Formats: sequence, structure tokens, C-alpha cells
Amino acid sequence: MRHPVHTHLQPEVNLRPVPDAFLQALEARFGSHCSTALVVREQHGRDESPYTNVPPPAAVVFAATTPDVADAVRLCAEHRVPLIPYGVGSSLEGHLLAIQGGISIDVSRMNRVLSINAEDLTVTVQPGVTRKQLNEAVRDRGLFFPIDPGADASIGGMAATRASGTNAVRYGTMRENVLALEVVTAQGRVIRTGTRAKKSSAGYDLTRLMVGSEGTLGVFTEITLKLYPLPEAVSAAICSFPSIEAAVRTTIAVIQMGIPIARCELLDAASVRAVNVHSKLTLREEPMLLMEFHGSPTSVQEQAEWVQEIAQEHGGQAFEWATTPEERSRLWTARHNAYFAAIQSKPGCKAVTTDTCVPISRLADGLLDAVAEADAAGLPYFLVGHVGDGNFHIGYLIDPNQPEERETAERLNHQLVSRALALGGTCTGEHGVGLHKMGFLLAEAGADTIDMMRAIKQALDPDHILNPGKIF
Amino acid sequence: MRHPVHTHLQPEVNLRPVPDAFLQALEARFGSHCSTALVVREQHGRDESPYTNVPPPAAVVFAATTPDVADAVRLCAEHRVPLIPYGVGSSLEGHLLAIQGGISIDVSRMNRVLSINAEDLTVTVQPGVTRKQLNEAVRDRGLFFPIDPGADASIGGMAATRASGTNAVRYGTMRENVLALEVVTAQGRVIRTGTRAKKSSAGYDLTRLMVGSEGTLGVFTEITLKLYPLPEAVSAAICSFPSIEAAVRTTIAVIQMGIPIARCELLDAASVRAVNVHSKLTLREEPMLLMEFHGSPTSVQEQAEWVQEIAQEHGGQAFEWATTPEERSRLWTARHNAYFAAIQSKPGCKAVTTDTCVPISRLADGLLDAVAEADAAGLPYFLVGHVGDGNFHIGYLIDPNQPEERETAERLNHQLVSRALALGGTCTGEHGVGLHKMGFLLAEAGADTIDMMRAIKQALDPDHILNPGKIF
Repeated sequence: MRHPVHTHLQPEVNLRPVPDAFLQALEARFGSHCSTALVVREQHGRDESPYTNVPPPAAVVFAATTPDVADAVRLCAEHRVPLIPYGVGSSLEGHLLAIQGGISIDVSRMNRVLSINAEDLTVTVQPGVTRKQLNEAVRDRGLFFPIDPGADASIGGMAATRASGTNAVRYGTMRENVLALEVVTAQGRVIRTGTRAKKSSAGYDLTRLMVGSEGTLGVFTEITLKLYPLPEAVSAAICSFPSIEAAVRTTIAVIQMGIPIARCELLDAASVRAVNVHSKLTLREEPMLLMEFHGSPTSVQEQAEWVQEIAQEHGGQAFEWATTPEERSRLWTARHNAYFAAIQSKPGCKAVTTDTCVPISRLADGLLDAVAEADAAGLPYFLVGHVGDGNFHIGYLIDPNQPEERETAERLNHQLVSRALALGGTCTGEHGVGLHKMGFLLAEAGADTIDMMRAIKQALDPDHILNPGKIF
Repeated sequence: MRHPVHTHLQPEVNLRPVPDAFLQALEARFGSHCSTALVVREQHGRDESPYTNVPPPAAVVFAATTPDVADAVRLCAEHRVPLIPYGVGSSLEGHLLAIQGGISIDVSRMNRVLSINAEDLTVTVQPGVTRKQLNEAVRDRGLFFPIDPGADASIGGMAATRASGTNAVRYGTMRENVLALEVVTAQGRVIRTGTRAKKSSAGYDLTRLMVGSEGTLGVFTEITLKLYPLPEAVSAAICSFPSIEAAVRTTIAVIQMGIPIARCELLDAASVRAVNVHSKLTLREEPMLLMEFHGSPTSVQEQAEWVQEIAQEHGGQAFEWATTPEERSRLWTARHNAYFAAIQSKPGCKAVTTDTCVPISRLADGLLDAVAEADAAGLPYFLVGHVGDGNFHIGYLIDPNQPEERETAERLNHQLVSRALALGGTCTGEHGVGLHKMGFLLAEAGADTIDMMRAIKQALDPDHILNPGKIF
């Protein structure tokens, strides 16, 4: 049943025509909100993926409203020109690369928080709102939005990739936290996919179909999200371990006991070292769990006591606590910057990043073998993980001018993903497929399942104008 | 943007041909596992919906394995004969009625729990396993599955209608608790839609597309679910209120404070009375909240104290506690039987059941006006509600031989749904659309959104053999 896994070092580029009449119509409609300047196009034609040398889009439209997006999509539909929605450009998987040409629709100016319904714990935002901006907007209502990928990503991009982050172990991912969407379809129609009701059995779950569709089924113009009350008490702790294995086994025990831990992050010694340099910290340069507990004061204390006991059984050092908001914020900022810190530890490098997620009982198998293989290969790497979910990232640091480093990294990636699939896991926990994981997705889902995805794509976007060539 | 709401008192029946060659091929393949006996066909041609007089399916196949289902679907595909998956027959919305003829595929013999992964908190079952059977199978591993519609429904049917129940306020619905599916497509292919990983960004979310698709996109043959550790401590309480309004306002305050209550159910005085008769209880016949708290002993105590305080502020009577498993089980069994208890309170009646769900801040508006309208109409009714989710059911008790009662009930239903939509809610929180809510779905979602659903249906089932004529 399993298909062989192929990883292409460069994507296939197959530019489709962008008629002059289309560009003229675009400029007539958008004026100064449409740019064909090379520097602007180049900025919108790259992301954080390891790919290089893909030509930039032919133009960039800066949309400010839903009608802007709808008009841009209608023009693309009329001329069969591809379009790629653009938020902040933090994709790791090549989602933003214009491999079939066309235009970029930049929604970063659609950055208004439209309505906060504090009583219902919901908020509706435009897609260009970033996660930090959203949290600033709702904090004084005593609320927060937990999904936090490393970058200060846009909510639109997070919904499009089904993103998660450090809080997912308790609060779920974008899958669980998007309630409804306003979407511009491939025909340029504006539809709504749900209501603000907490649950619904009203027809096909188009919201969940759109979440994770990576810009291939529609362009999101409004997003309604769940919010959560800021916990009465929050406590963060770090704990060092003699080995990655000890940290992983601690995590597995915590999850299996059903302790409602809010965050449970693993950093290997290399990541801690990079974070120390980047964020001027003095953390012990050993494998480390960075944890957080949310709840009432008594519940937080109870959770912390249980976890300390489990950690101790696995050789964990005494916990160090960060109880003030400032200390906690410093630690979590350092964690969120781990990716950039690691990149900076090898000047000029790019990272080939893995993203497997396995059932928690298989986490030790999946992770420790990957570490052994990376050590044997001799390529510098860092490891961070949302281990409470069974999800971890190894970033192999490669010199983009040394093709053999890229090849080594992709070989390690390939071994790691194959193992994750054999363990009942997925090739991507939160980054999406984009270009980089298309071969892995086929191996994971099988040809018949991909056929169903293709049939849906064909039905909703028959001219393949919406971010074509991605996912499958 | 809103469309007028139409409710049809009887579904349009439009039987498609069932060729003799098809029936012969079916009997050759299934032998005694295929029945054309009238009593068997009639049993599979009805459900708990208010519809009557729809002809039964032409045959019933009793599938025992995935290849059985795949072969039956392939025969249907070859002869373009409709098919309807059948679990226990507890649909409230006409899902099981063979309005275009064809056959019923009964999966109740596919009732094996295939694998329990206690360490990962997952289980894989066949679709005919019922919720009670599942809980019996996992209890001695210290686990439970929280989704509990009133009937002892099949897991397949629960997944197909995106069901929920009394625990959804804390544990979510089938949307959040189905991890992966094995599905037989309209072409008779067997596909898998996910893995056992807790989260994934691997392509379109076919699992969530299938959950809630009401048998119109595929037949489920295996279902992988999340499980939860049995809480260390559980406490249930009942509290009577001077009015429905006081009970509703208590609920709203509890949810808005973020108290992690596990169950929060409203029963009106009529429901309590029916339950008392049916289950030989002596509950105070006033509006009542039936609640449950899960967690560590200290957390349960803390939650209970907060809720008692809130209830008292709204005129709630002192809590009565049910702390032993036997007492709790008795109370919850009574709650689950409320529907049947109410039906029995008016001999020979059928219930026209509503299922709106609104944002919690609008619950009092949505519910109290509906109660006033029902009181004014003079038709007997009962009200039960998963009010912690903003979801409640009014069951109007009608004599099926008195058309004017049915008309009154549908008028009340219509008013109630229109109000819920205006309040930002949905026409169905957990029962599904089936036949009964097709007009409401159009009003809720709009024609362009329904067009997208139709396009997906057309792409995946071009000959419309999978439960045709339902949802839209």
C-alpha cells in the first residue's frame, strides 16, 4: 500500500501566460495598490523554505478589503492566471513560490480585528492580523488566542496551513479553533462557511475543508476564532535532563496520565546553546523541557507537583520556575526565536526542517533514531519539539551553496518521515505540505486518497488558478 | 442575503429503478446476508423523524466486513442504485428514508472494537459499535469516550451526523473526536483519511469533510477516535430554579467564567415530570440544571463551589449531590431517556424536534422566546438542552393523525430556527440536516455555500448513489 517517497531538491517550474490585458486590467482596478516592481515581486516570491531560484510573481496586489480580493480573483479567473495569497511570508514549505507564475495577493493590509465577542469567547479578524496583534487586541478583555507558531504569522496563513505551536497540547490547533470563514472562491464569489455557534451539524464542514487547504481552494477574507479566558494562574518551569530520551519519556508519562499541561516543549542542547547566544540567556546547555501550567492556583500547583515527580523519576534536574509575566515572556520569546537563533548559529545557512507527528507512545522510537542518524551524518542540526503532541522538528543547517549538504539533509528527512509513517504518524504536524512534502503526502495518504483531494480541487477550482501545483 | 425558510411536511419521493439484474447480483454475492423480506425492509425504511409513508428500500444488505461494504457499493455504482448506510436507526431527521429507492446497507454486524491504544488515548472501531458498547470495552483500561447522544447510537451514525451530547461542553463533538476514517467511496474504493497522530497538516481534511456528511460522500467502515482517561474524581449535582431564565443565566455565567464544567444540562418542568414517571424518580418538578464536574478531587470541589455560588445568585435551590457511580448513572440514564419519557407522556405521539445552537450570549434570547411561543400555541412540548454549548431541543408532541398539530409544530420550529439564525446561530447543533432541515440549511448557509457543497458531492459521487436527496 505504501508508495515510495520522492523529495525533489528543486520544484518544477512551469510558468503560465500572464496576458498584458490582464496586467492592464489589474492596474486599472488597483492603481498604486498593484506593483510590478522587481523588489516587491521578489519579496513576495520567496519564503522560509529551502528552495531558491524560482522566478517571482508577475505582480503583487495589496488588497485592503474583501471586494479587493474578490475583484482580483475574478480578474485572475477571467484570464486563467494563477494567484497566491500572501500574509507575512513565513511559510517553511514553499507555499508562496510562484512555480506556475501569476500574481501574489498580499492581504497584510487587511489587518483589522473586526469584532470581539468576549461573552461568547469568539473574535472575527481579517486575514492579515498577526497572532501577536490579535493577542494585544484581546488581552484587556481578559482573553487570549493560544495558537503560536514560531513566527509572528498572519491568522490567514495560520488557518491556511492548519498551524499550531506550543499551546496545542491543551488548546488544539487551527483545526479546532477556527469557527467560521469568509472565503473568496475561485469564481470570485464571497461565501461564509459557518456561524458563531460553538457546534453545528449543518451540512459539509467547509470550514475544516478550507483550514489547511494552503490557498488552493479559496482566499480567506474573514476568520472567526475561539478565544480563551486568560488563566487565573500561570506557571512556567524549565527542567534539564541527562538525555533527550529522559525528557521524551517524561513527556510521554505526563500525557498518558492525562495531566492538562498547557505547554510541553523539548529543546536539545544545540537549541539551548543557540537560544542562549541569541537571547542572552544562561540556560543549562542540556536537553531541556520548557513547560507551562494553566488553571486555578490550586490546580496549577497540583499539576506542577505531579510533573516534578515524574521528571525526577526520569533523572530531571530540579525545576526552575518563572512565575512573573516578564520572566515567562522572556523564556517563551527565546523558545519562539529558537529557529532563527539556530539559523544564525551557522552564518549564511538555510534550514531543512522536518515536522513529523506520531502517536505519543511511538515518540521515543521516532525521535531517538532520527537523532542518531543526524549525529552519524555529521551535519549540524537543532531539535525542538511540541513533544506533548508527538510533534518535533529537526532543522538540518545547510549551506545553500553546497548541494551535497542539501542532499544529506533531504536523505535524513526522508528516513525520518518514512519512520514516522511506519509508526502510524504524519509527515507534517503543523507546517503544511506546500512543495516540500508532496512526495511524503502521497506516501502517507495513498493514491486513492490523493485522488479524492484532486477531485475536490478540480470541482472547486477547475482552471487551477488558486495556488496551483501545491499539496499534490 | 437570507433565504426564506421552507419546511416540507412530507419529503418528495422519487423512486429510481432497481434493476432485477442488480438484485440478482446482490443475492448472488450476499446470499442470506441480503434480505428482501418486507418486515426487514420496513424496519430499515424508518427512523425517529416525523415523516411517514415513505416506501421502504428494495433490499437490505447485512455487511460484516469492509469488502462486503465495498462490493455492495460497487454493485450499486454499476447499476446506479442508491444506497443508505444503516446503524441502529436512531436518526431524528429522516436520514434513513429511501426517498429515491435503492438499498439499505446495515453495518450493525460490523461491531468489533478493532484496537485500543491506551497509551495514545485512541481506539479504532467498526461503524456498528454503539457508544455504550465502546465505553464497556475501554472502561477497564481506565478510559472513556465522551460523546453521548440520547440513543445508544452507532459510532458510524454518530460520525455521519457529527453528533455530540451532554459532554460536548468540555470534550467537544464528533468533529473534534474522530481522528481518522476508513471510507468506501462512491466508486467502491477503500480509502483512509488520516493517521493516529494527534494533529496533522497533511493535505485536505477529508476526515472532517466526511464527519457530518450523512452518508452522502462515503460509507464509513473503520473509525479511529480519541479517548480520555476516566477522571480521578467525578461529581454530579442537580439544582432547581424558579424559572428557565434563571437556569439559563446561571449557565451563561458558568461558561463565561471559563469553569471547565463537564456537563451542563437543562430540563424544563415537563421534562422532569416525564423523567420522574419514566425512571421512577422524585425530582422536584421545576426547571433544573443537571451538572457534572470532572478532575482531581480538589479541582472538582473548586468547580462545584464556584458553580453553587453562581446558581445561588440566580435563585437556584441548594445542590443535591450524586457522588456514587450508581446514583450518577441513574440520573444520567434518566436524562438520556428524557426524549423517550416525553414521547410516552402522550401515547401514540411523535416528536417534532428542534436543534438550534446559538452563541452562549444569545441563549436566553433564543430560548425564552421559543418557550413563550410554544406556551401560546398550546401544543404539549418538552425542553431539554445542552445549554453549556448554547444548544437546546424543544420536542413538540404531535398526534401523527392530526395534520394541524404537525403544522403548528412546524410553524413553531420555523420561528425558532429563524430566530436562531438571526442571533448568529445554526439550525442544527448535533442532529444533522437529513430531510427535515434542508430548507433551514439553505437559509443558514446561503445559495453560494450550498453550491460549493453540491460541487463536492457531484465530484465525489457523480451518479448520486450515496444517500441521495439528503442535506441539500
